Amino acid sequence: MTAQIQSLMTDLGHRARAAARMLALAPGADKNKALRAAAQAIRIDAGVIIAANAQDMAAGAAKGLSNALLDRLMLDPARIKAMAKGLEEIAALPDPVGRRLAEWTRPNGLAIARVAVPLGVVGIIYESRPNVTADAAGLCLKSGNAAILRGGSESFHSSRAIMTALVGGITAAGLPADAVQMVPTTDRAAVGAMLRLSEFIDVIVPRGGKSLVARVVEESRIPLFQHLEGICHTYVDGAADLDMAKAVVLNAKMRRTGICGATETLLVDRACAATHLAPLVAMLIESGCEVRGDAATRAADRRAVTASEADWNTEYLDAIIAVKVVDGVLAAVEHVNTHGSGHTDAIITADAGAAEAFLQGCDSAIVLWNASTQFADGGEFGMGAEIGISTGKMHARGPVGVEQLCTFKYRVTGAGQVRPG
Amino acid sequence: MTAQIQSLMTDLGHRARAAARMLALAPGADKNKALRAAAQAIRIDAGVIIAANAQDMAAGAAKGLSNALLDRLMLDPARIKAMAKGLEEIAALPDPVGRRLAEWTRPNGLAIARVAVPLGVVGIIYESRPNVTADAAGLCLKSGNAAILRGGSESFHSSRAIMTALVGGITAAGLPADAVQMVPTTDRAAVGAMLRLSEFIDVIVPRGGKSLVARVVEESRIPLFQHLEGICHTYVDGAADLDMAKAVVLNAKMRRTGICGATETLLVDRACAATHLAPLVAMLIESGCEVRGDAATRAADRRAVTASEADWNTEYLDAIIAVKVVDGVLAAVEHVNTHGSGHTDAIITADAGAAEAFLQGCDSAIVLWNASTQFADGGEFGMGAEIGISTGKMHARGPVGVEQLCTFKYRVTGAGQVRPG
Repeated sequence: MTAQIQSLMTDLGHRARAAARMLALAPGADKNKALRAAAQAIRIDAGVIIAANAQDMAAGAAKGLSNALLDRLMLDPARIKAMAKGLEEIAALPDPVGRRLAEWTRPNGLAIARVAVPLGVVGIIYESRPNVTADAAGLCLKSGNAAILRGGSESFHSSRAIMTALVGGITAAGLPADAVQMVPTTDRAAVGAMLRLSEFIDVIVPRGGKSLVARVVEESRIPLFQHLEGICHTYVDGAADLDMAKAVVLNAKMRRTGICGATETLLVDRACAATHLAPLVAMLIESGCEVRGDAATRAADRRAVTASEADWNTEYLDAIIAVKVVDGVLAAVEHVNTHGSGHTDAIITADAGAAEAFLQGCDSAIVLWNASTQFADGGEFGMGAEIGISTGKMHARGPVGVEQLCTFKYRVTGAGQVRPG
Repeated sequence: MTAQIQSLMTDLGHRARAAARMLALAPGADKNKALRAAAQAIRIDAGVIIAANAQDMAAGAAKGLSNALLDRLMLDPARIKAMAKGLEEIAALPDPVGRRLAEWTRPNGLAIARVAVPLGVVGIIYESRPNVTADAAGLCLKSGNAAILRGGSESFHSSRAIMTALVGGITAAGLPADAVQMVPTTDRAAVGAMLRLSEFIDVIVPRGGKSLVARVVEESRIPLFQHLEGICHTYVDGAADLDMAKAVVLNAKMRRTGICGATETLLVDRACAATHLAPLVAMLIESGCEVRGDAATRAADRRAVTASEADWNTEYLDAIIAVKVVDGVLAAVEHVNTHGSGHTDAIITADAGAAEAFLQGCDSAIVLWNASTQFADGGEFGMGAEIGISTGKMHARGPVGVEQLCTFKYRVTGAGQVRPG
């Protein structure tokens, strides 16, 4: 790592910390004004942003990026409008800062309150989607945090143009320009330097594919809000209604196959395999899903192919599902805890006891009873936009929205109390 | 690190994870039964524990440990009784597991609950006090976590004897023997191996001096609940009542000088320096405290010695205080945020506006208005025993009691809902 990058990143960190101290004290109205002004600036700058994006698209095409990546990178007027609207939706959320999370009075009269305060400085490391620039900046601003953004090199010009609009809105509202900063280089060494800025950055949110997240997990000296992958399960219990199971499983696997809450493995209770397995497998195959099954699954439908051991540990993010017959809910829990990624897992059953065993037993951020794993989403939870989903057990678990971007402090009010003894 | 230590630690990790899965499902009554049985076993084994402690004391004396360290190491019947009573007090706390932290229903009928669950496996790395063995194990057990304990080599025999009693109580209550494990070697390489067991340990709590904590912070790949030091401030505002200020400052500095919540720096508002500074300094000096002051402080009392720059950043843990005159509450906040350690800071004032500026502005886990910094303690907060105090912003901040040893999961209950779109 060059000394130059090191010093560049330290400077960003210093500025972010100073801005964070101001943002922590900013009234909700000022933050909302900044978010609305930023939305307006993005609409006004739409032409400039699309021109910058065209530069990135041309470079991406020349570099041979896949069509899927180019689609993620692409900005058009509709996507720019959606980005601006997203900022206005964040402005409309309640202010997460200053909430009294708990309060109580001690026998000696000390009044103790646990009050929500911003984390401080949030670092976001992401890949090609330039809209993350606006979404992440907006969530950080709303929660009173300064943000340091490091986007993918492919979206550098797009993100820079979006940043200019954001900062214009923020300063127009009287908040510090350094509230949102972008790492001004595509040098990969800057990521390494960022991951060691523990003095200046309170949490890092990596958003992107498994290799990006794995690198961040390996190198970071800063706490993370992250999930490496979503190996989500749906377990169809012996007491499951077949029609409900079919509807939920189809949605959980096929609604969108590329999101982290998509089901990757279907577990079927041996107690209902005779009646439920064949219709579930047939439905999946007929909807265009490849089924990789154990022996019982292949016996139920000869179109299923053989699942290898690796399949139980694989996040396909595609129209592929692993299917296995298990001996009841405890075996399902065991499978989930052994092969899952602690993200989101569901049971379909009419038996409350089986549901309880599953919901308690699975060590996952989100456990569902009779609903689709694709509900794993901050918006679907009613939390507003999310900056990501965390499978960590510290602090934020599950969807990470503006409340999760806060920590708290204890405010203690006395009348001169001293501690005896 | 030898392969043997690596494999030993991995084995401990596997056992702890398996025990944690069982503990997470254990009813509160079983955990309380285990805690009471462990307390009883400690009382019964008192003779054996004292004999083991004598071995450690002899080795410690031969090694030339200081009297202070030998005192920490020493166990007598009164300390053993206190240890047993501590476990019974933990048993009497409400069960932190299963609390519904929040619940709401979505427009589509999905019922979402955020429910407290154990973290999983907690690692505790501590120094010479053998009573930490029982305290930490008790807090982990109550919160449904498996514990891996690594005590100081000086207290190895004492801790092992306490462990035997603890495990006897735990198994008598039908809970797994691996609920509490001790690293069975004093090899320092075991600590390094432990800090990399991120697959098996969810959080590490280092308890001890600054050099121990600094090593853990540097090496750990696992989230920590820790504070490196407590550089706590008391700020006497221009609107402070002098009598209250004297009582609170004397307690904050001198009640116990060796605890992390002891005040290390006194800040006095220039607005009241003419009336308040000399009496405060005289009181401190006359109570046996060395005062290291800025020019204004030395002018107020010539017994004060000169403070160097380093004094503003020093945790004395002794009868020494740094004293400085500042220009009002904002300068006090600036000093605290620059030189403090984010632990605990207090303002003495009759002015609610100044108090608000201080409480909001200081980026510390605990901020107090008109009360002593020595209240920074889980017991004083009414949280029951604490495993430590955290200055981190993730998850637990301030005192870490049984509630903070829990994380949560989202339990979602539906009636077959699928996600549209």
